[in-house]
Amino acid sequence: MKVASLKGGGRDGRLVVVRRDLTRCLPVPGIAPTLQAALDNWSTLAPRLAERAAALEASPALPGAIAFDIAQCAAPLPRAFHWVDGSAYVNHVELVRKARGAEMPASFWTDPLVYQGGSDDLLGARDDVPFGDEAWGIDLEAEIAVITDDVAMGTTAAAAAPHIKLLTLVNDWSLRNLIPGELAKGFGFYQSKPATAFAPVAVTPDELGDAWRDCKVHLPLLSRINGADFGRPDAGTDMTFNFAQLIAHVTRTRRLGAGAIVGSGTVSNYDRSRGASCLAEKRTLELLESGKPQTPFLKFGDRVSIEMRSADGQNIFGTLDNQVVRGA
Amino acid sequence: MKVASLKGGGRDGRLVVVRRDLTRCLPVPGIAPTLQAALDNWSTLAPRLAERAAALEASPALPGAIAFDIAQCAAPLPRAFHWVDGSAYVNHVELVRKARGAEMPASFWTDPLVYQGGSDDLLGARDDVPFGDEAWGIDLEAEIAVITDDVAMGTTAAAAAPHIKLLTLVNDWSLRNLIPGELAKGFGFYQSKPATAFAPVAVTPDELGDAWRDCKVHLPLLSRINGADFGRPDAGTDMTFNFAQLIAHVTRTRRLGAGAIVGSGTVSNYDRSRGASCLAEKRTLELLESGKPQTPFLKFGDRVSIEMRSADGQNIFGTLDNQVVRGA
Repeated sequence: MKVASLKGGGRDGRLVVVRRDLTRCLPVPGIAPTLQAALDNWSTLAPRLAERAAALEASPALPGAIAFDIAQCAAPLPRAFHWVDGSAYVNHVELVRKARGAEMPASFWTDPLVYQGGSDDLLGARDDVPFGDEAWGIDLEAEIAVITDDVAMGTTAAAAAPHIKLLTLVNDWSLRNLIPGELAKGFGFYQSKPATAFAPVAVTPDELGDAWRDCKVHLPLLSRINGADFGRPDAGTDMTFNFAQLIAHVTRTRRLGAGAIVGSGTVSNYDRSRGASCLAEKRTLELLESGKPQTPFLKFGDRVSIEMRSADGQNIFGTLDNQVVRGA
Repeated sequence: MKVASLKGGGRDGRLVVVRRDLTRCLPVPGIAPTLQAALDNWSTLAPRLAERAAALEASPALPGAIAFDIAQCAAPLPRAFHWVDGSAYVNHVELVRKARGAEMPASFWTDPLVYQGGSDDLLGARDDVPFGDEAWGIDLEAEIAVITDDVAMGTTAAAAAPHIKLLTLVNDWSLRNLIPGELAKGFGFYQSKPATAFAPVAVTPDELGDAWRDCKVHLPLLSRINGADFGRPDAGTDMTFNFAQLIAHVTRTRRLGAGAIVGSGTVSNYDRSRGASCLAEKRTLELLESGKPQTPFLKFGDRVSIEMRSADGQNIFGTLDNQVVRGA
């Protein structure tokens, strides 16, 4: 099943089920007005949503169905109660540390790194993304995220998989030139991690077929900048911690409420021929190769698009395609 | 006006207005079912809520009014979309750093320190607070927090004050023995900052009268552990950054959505005779005085209570009184 949230109808959007080919969608206000409302009662409502999705699959002209327009999509959860982002592709962390001459602690291979993100302003797949200053070092981070139901404190990795109810894609915009000063203060990211953008569609794990195994997505994540290919690392390769392990880490001392979003961190492969999912990684490789980064950070007017395609070429989550703009 | 959220009726509780003396309350489902719903449309709904609060003040036996029972209270926002906590009492940061022989950067006096907290599981004033292990170093942090409406990116401190719609008290439980390892990883707190507890009642700034000035609360914050006085620092003294300055800091690169919670950090005075708002500060003073901390962290079964009283002795927010218990 694929779901999305259309803009309008309130701050949390209007829940729709979406046809697999992303051409048509069906509002389902009689089942749940919003995706958060559906997640609050997922075990009861998901089968009813799936029945509507199957009906839409069978007959695109189903009464009530409308054309699916990504420009009308908010993030699947336009605001969420919890957004925690991992850094599960540890080779990326290792590389960035190497570039600044810092040893990465060996524990990073066994103890996941996560940060708590702001979740009151999650951007849609075609929303403009405002920044106050190009000098902040505007960067993309292409990632995968899962959305959970309620997860108890102390949930083990072995017990975590059934709590993964939906998957989607994320552009975790980062302000690279604000990061060193902020991390030096010791309390982690805040100003350097502004509002995050989301793919138009979230999907249940079964939509991925064999590509969803070991709680990883075994498909390339495609990024483009201003239409030019930027990266296509395989999200199933070099993922040191799978989503079940990330959930176990984040529930060690707390529970997660329904609708919690857990991100993978920047997808990155040791095979550098696959490109990167953020400019920071590309610039680090340039630094290591030539002594200095060549590729600039993003400028106002630049566009970043992110998508993932199945083995048969289907666009699974729809395409994020956001423009960087000057903030008010 | 004072508001609270009674448990039941869904994950976000049932909004009530509360009498100033905390004896009676009035459900207001015809105005807004939840506090979040009220905050989503505050400029329209707050006057209607205030009218009901005034009616309850005038006649405690108003039809529909019921006894106000703090044990039935969830947090004012049982879950929120944004919870960011400052560290505005910089003397506390300076002291803790001194104890570990670390110089505090001078910029800490001009650039606020904040961390992003988890907001999907905010605890009520009488809820048990579960932890997996006493060895984690369970500590209280008594604080003040404000709740905002929508705040645009780039809001200045001069323009921030009108966005402060409500104030409340917070116990920002901290796991001291998990902090060093987590902060050493560089991404800030996550496991070391579990679910936060809130006072039963949130109040509009006018409820504080003259005690609310310069976007600070000029009253002592009272903490007790197992019934024994622990601290009574004045929240208006030694607050280096007021709430307007904290809001300006957090909106530098992002907007805040209605219902965002911004905390002060542990309230702390240079005048150590007033006690502390967390065990870490007390233990640090013991370390500096005698070479070693004397006061242990909290144990299962310990109770922590926090409240604030007006100059004439009125309990403004109701009392947090949470028991530390062994987690599942």
